[in-house]
Amino acid sequence: MEKKYTIKKYTRGEGFSQVVDRVAVERPLTIFLNSLELITLMCSPQHLDELGIGYLVAEGLIKKNDNIRVSVEESKGLLQVEADEINSASLQGMGRRTITTGCGKGAYFYHLNDRRQRTVVEDPSVVRMDEILEGMKEFQKQSQVYRETGGVHGAALKLLGRDPIFREDVGRHNAVDKLLGHCALQKYKTEGAVLFLSGRISSEIVIKGGRIGIPILVSRSAPTSLAIDIALDLGLTLVGFARGRSANIYSHGERIE
Amino acid sequence: MEKKYTIKKYTRGEGFSQVVDRVAVERPLTIFLNSLELITLMCSPQHLDELGIGYLVAEGLIKKNDNIRVSVEESKGLLQVEADEINSASLQGMGRRTITTGCGKGAYFYHLNDRRQRTVVEDPSVVRMDEILEGMKEFQKQSQVYRETGGVHGAALKLLGRDPIFREDVGRHNAVDKLLGHCALQKYKTEGAVLFLSGRISSEIVIKGGRIGIPILVSRSAPTSLAIDIALDLGLTLVGFARGRSANIYSHGERIE
Repeated sequence: MEKKYTIKKYTRGEGFSQVVDRVAVERPLTIFLNSLELITLMCSPQHLDELGIGYLVAEGLIKKNDNIRVSVEESKGLLQVEADEINSASLQGMGRRTITTGCGKGAYFYHLNDRRQRTVVEDPSVVRMDEILEGMKEFQKQSQVYRETGGVHGAALKLLGRDPIFREDVGRHNAVDKLLGHCALQKYKTEGAVLFLSGRISSEIVIKGGRIGIPILVSRSAPTSLAIDIALDLGLTLVGFARGRSANIYSHGERIE
Repeated sequence: MEKKYTIKKYTRGEGFSQVVDRVAVERPLTIFLNSLELITLMCSPQHLDELGIGYLVAEGLIKKNDNIRVSVEESKGLLQVEADEINSASLQGMGRRTITTGCGKGAYFYHLNDRRQRTVVEDPSVVRMDEILEGMKEFQKQSQVYRETGGVHGAALKLLGRDPIFREDVGRHNAVDKLLGHCALQKYKTEGAVLFLSGRISSEIVIKGGRIGIPILVSRSAPTSLAIDIALDLGLTLVGFARGRSANIYSHGERIE
């Protein structure tokens, strides 16, 4: 369930130190139903048989009291399910899809993508850690209210020389998409941009950030293992556990001083 | 952004009272790209142009500096995007999909579904509110640790006459799917079952709960408007803001005493 990473920890007044951090593992699980490749879920690699069956039942593809056979190849992230009866109406138009751990919408997952589509973010901007911690504090103030009263997620984007933009949505990834859409519509440059998130940093958010060229992602929560691996690869700076006076840097710390 | 519902509020020692609660609106937005129906996102109905463009850019379907035209029909939940260039590799196999606000995986949304597939949960079980609040307290204790250290979401299921089952995952809906899969694999009966969630109750979780026949869903956070509407329709009991000595009942309070 956990993977170890050597990261940089920052504490105000003490500066940076190197520490080993344990991070929740995120992995793909591809589900085959009666030999048909159905979907790839990004998940924690435990209870994979339950996950596959639960997904199929909850999506209405098979019935819970049906005669079901399951086999898992854990190392390959494959789950084969055989059922006597499939609900073909629910299957229609499903196609082969990859859905990420985050909040919906990640149709094409990085590692399944054509690597030629991958764009490395080569942004030489440097941001002070104090600015990041201050930005997080402001963002927390704004998003707290929404989370508590309405169950709405927030995200904020700080572009160089501009006031932070704040968006909220019942779907967490939607708030991020709204910010990215704002940049695209306004044709804003994303050099030195910092994206503030309230929740966990999953692989999907990293891919989204990379696609629009946002170099720095900050959350008060933890990243997943795959989020770190992809951020390392795509040249993105991941900052997690940004709380009060301290934060962890999980990748590309050269942008933080 | 908000819709009003008349709900029952419970406070230990004071009993039940009727109050008006404001709930975050959740609505579908169907995105067309160059006249091709692409996806339906469940979202908060604000900044819909940004959401659509951000989604398309973040998924690699269009480029952020491309020449993009957008038009929104807000009342119908439709967004038309015209772009000079589409990334056909990212489009491949996408099909027509509905993705919910939650954490991925909700391919077939209720209201787009054949209504004949809908199954109303007719479970006459009655559970005491005190048991629900105690169960929530236990669940909170277990899930707190995971959320704080690993950014992992938890969910718990209490079946009649059994100890609660706890599952965790980097994807919140995966934890729920694991619990549902556990029931299906063990062929457990779900009469009188209570599902405990740490986060917001979105429409997707309600649909999942309904498909497996879990009559009572409890969260310490808020439900969305669509979650309530669907729960009312499917005969599910939604309890939100279950914290300490009080909770709100959003639908089918006849199961709570």
